[in-house]
Amino acid sequence: MSRATRIPEPYSIRINDLRNEIRKRRLDAYFVQDRMDQYWLTGFTGEDGGVLVTPRQVVLLTDGRFDEAAEHEAPWARKVLRKKRGPEATVRELRRLRVRRVGFNGGHMTVSDFNALRKLGRPIRLVPIPSPIQPRRAVKTPAEVARIRTAVGVAEQAFEAVRKWLRPGLSEREIAARLAYEMRQRGAQGEAFPSIVAVGPNSSLPHYEPGDRRLTETELLLVDWGARVNWYGSDLTRVVWLGSIPAQLRKVFDVVREAQARGIEAVRPGARAAAVDRAARQVIDKAGFGKRFNHALGHGIGLVGHEAPRVGKLSTDVLEPGMVVTIEPGIYLPGIGGIRLEDDVLVTETGHEVLSTLPVSFA
Amino acid sequence: MSRATRIPEPYSIRINDLRNEIRKRRLDAYFVQDRMDQYWLTGFTGEDGGVLVTPRQVVLLTDGRFDEAAEHEAPWARKVLRKKRGPEATVRELRRLRVRRVGFNGGHMTVSDFNALRKLGRPIRLVPIPSPIQPRRAVKTPAEVARIRTAVGVAEQAFEAVRKWLRPGLSEREIAARLAYEMRQRGAQGEAFPSIVAVGPNSSLPHYEPGDRRLTETELLLVDWGARVNWYGSDLTRVVWLGSIPAQLRKVFDVVREAQARGIEAVRPGARAAAVDRAARQVIDKAGFGKRFNHALGHGIGLVGHEAPRVGKLSTDVLEPGMVVTIEPGIYLPGIGGIRLEDDVLVTETGHEVLSTLPVSFA
Repeated sequence: MSRATRIPEPYSIRINDLRNEIRKRRLDAYFVQDRMDQYWLTGFTGEDGGVLVTPRQVVLLTDGRFDEAAEHEAPWARKVLRKKRGPEATVRELRRLRVRRVGFNGGHMTVSDFNALRKLGRPIRLVPIPSPIQPRRAVKTPAEVARIRTAVGVAEQAFEAVRKWLRPGLSEREIAARLAYEMRQRGAQGEAFPSIVAVGPNSSLPHYEPGDRRLTETELLLVDWGARVNWYGSDLTRVVWLGSIPAQLRKVFDVVREAQARGIEAVRPGARAAAVDRAARQVIDKAGFGKRFNHALGHGIGLVGHEAPRVGKLSTDVLEPGMVVTIEPGIYLPGIGGIRLEDDVLVTETGHEVLSTLPVSFA
Repeated sequence: MSRATRIPEPYSIRINDLRNEIRKRRLDAYFVQDRMDQYWLTGFTGEDGGVLVTPRQVVLLTDGRFDEAAEHEAPWARKVLRKKRGPEATVRELRRLRVRRVGFNGGHMTVSDFNALRKLGRPIRLVPIPSPIQPRRAVKTPAEVARIRTAVGVAEQAFEAVRKWLRPGLSEREIAARLAYEMRQRGAQGEAFPSIVAVGPNSSLPHYEPGDRRLTETELLLVDWGARVNWYGSDLTRVVWLGSIPAQLRKVFDVVREAQARGIEAVRPGARAAAVDRAARQVIDKAGFGKRFNHALGHGIGLVGHEAPRVGKLSTDVLEPGMVVTIEPGIYLPGIGGIRLEDDVLVTETGHEVLSTLPVSFA
């Protein structure tokens, strides 16, 4: 009896999908190198990994450190423990499986690995193909949506705990540290990505790293953070003032809030992601801040911080039920400050659901 | 006047070294893609980056999000803000610079990036070469050693704060969260790598991720952690008992301690890294635990968690003054527990200096 018949859901479905792609492309196998692709496809979390999928077999390549994990997480797969990094074990398996053409994601394999594998594996052909996994990962199962929802909740509760504790004099770094701590205390594996915690003019840098600037009564605090819980992440942004918002930034805030509302409204199945971006961007353009919104409106979330679909001007993606995207317009005024608002939005059968529940304004 | 004449130290020295390599290999340029290589070479921290170095110019490729950072961190470099990812801007610069042969690290470039760059850049030749930067990064300047020393100090202080707070019932996850928090409160950017916090038998998994197991009076706690401060990391491991060590593990502990002492003693300029590994491994072999020490003795630390040199059986590296390596023997008994001790050791002109100052034993 083939071990493959005992693959549990959802892995059986995902692997079958991949096998269809393998056949369609006249390949004998597909080689997964990305750790999160590997986890999504098999449930195996080992760091040193690789998965070979053929029409009949699934082989996990890992090393002794992850032997126990492989046994727990994917007992139905053939497990190959390699003694050292390098192509030897992979080539051995490819030959055993009589693979002549193996597909892979060219965005995940390095030139060095490719050259080593090609040389040792001759005459096996390595065929770079567009990832058959990434677009499927973009559409979440209900179980995956539930995990993202949990990650949103953990992030929100941690934020509320931190917000109550905020006082003038705290540094960006201290606030970021506390936020990470509060998320982990609530069950997060860690931050979904390094939090951005920016006081005053630092908030005009969309990718600022928390430093020594300290919170004051009058300056804004921008926080862009997320929790990773059970491998799935959330991604939110809020701005907070301890005092009242200066008039100039109040106006900017209102524009961003309006832009975000328009963007969220546009999220529904069948919508082009570029149109969602445009719905929000138009608001900012009309208010005269178009040049101050210099990034995409959003991106998918899930197993990595940014995944498909892309919600930007040039995106060709179309939204489908089960996708979860951020909607995060921002206006950045160098030397003054930046306002960004970000929520996580599920595409439903009929429209959308905003997974995050925090108030937009803390002024 | 060339801008290049104004490059400050240490970047001027590093770039000159790289230029010598470029000439030696009859290249016209070298293309840096790795973020930490980029930081080491130029001081620029931007995430979306790339550096083109020619005999006369240094070009930073990034995007608008990191414009301000580039101005602050490397004002002496030519800055090119690209509108989108992809090879267009890189190829434009390569043509402007009349580059015909450009070297790169095959371990840093993906097959997709390579193919896109090669196609658009024809007839420019892309030449994979052994990294000219990684071996140089292994030898730290006094300023870099000072940063690592700070990172060791922050990690140690945080550990001591956590140790005093330990009590039965705390989960691995809670302890890991607290440790990260204490490091960040002391100025760390974050963990140098995800901490391993393992209670009891979980400690036998060298790459365990903290979970829900709770500390008891009788089981051991293994903590493998490090702080990243000003980009440079530390990496330490200690085992702690709230009560007394069971006799079986006491013996194992003594073997590991002895192995570590022999390994540290062997660290000196001119020593082969493989011989340092052997000095420690012999102790474990003689005690009959050879098969239970299934990883290398150590590795270089600095800008990433594991960097050159490798301190393992098969390493061909030779130690030089300025290298900083971990010495971390371990013995892992499945189902029972693992003991590992890890310190950070600087190779000096005459021998070595252990940068970490924590006691070895907390039993």
